[in-house]
Amino acid sequence: MSKEINAVYIGRKRTMDYCLVVVTIFNKGENQCTIRARGRSISKAVDVAEITNRKFLHEMIEVSDVKIGSEELEGDHGPKTVSTIDITLIRKSGK
Amino acid sequence: MSKEINAVYIGRKRTMDYCLVVVTIFNKGENQCTIRARGRSISKAVDVAEITNRKFLHEMIEVSDVKIGSEELEGDHGPKTVSTIDITLIRKSGK
Repeated sequence: MSKEINAVYIGRKRTMDYCLVVVTIFNKGENQCTIRARGRSISKAVDVAEITNRKFLHEMIEVSDVKIGSEELEGDHGPKTVSTIDITLIRKSGK
Repeated sequence: MSKEINAVYIGRKRTMDYCLVVVTIFNKGENQCTIRARGRSISKAVDVAEITNRKFLHEMIEVSDVKIGSEELEGDHGPKTVSTIDITLIRKSGK
């Protein structure tokens, strides 16, 4: 199963909308999900991971990895660099 | 050397102000620094880590660990939970 298939990209929707997407992925039986965000959406990505873990899938999933990085984007005034985050959630063994 | 001593708490100042604090810590010879933030400052914390690493101390430091979590705070309308991030930067060996 590719990591890419279960990637959830955080944008302008509400935090709870993304939480629901993550919950649905695990409820379908998947064992892994990566929450991805850039720039100001990074705070929301951490909220999605924490709220999903704490409120919805507690005891069932855990954060297996958090990676930060940078990406170059084409902006209105030439290329600009934005920060990125990838938060990987996995199903706990036997859950 | 305690981790706490070199903690940089991200708040409302400009990103570059915090980058300068991190650069100063490593230039004083310290081998580790932890960038900490809560709530909406989390995006800025990732920017500080990435910009310091990419622009100022490239080749000299690396991200050794990223932890996310939650904290309960007293809000105006009772306790509220906020997300947190701790980004630990370390000096590369021999640098």
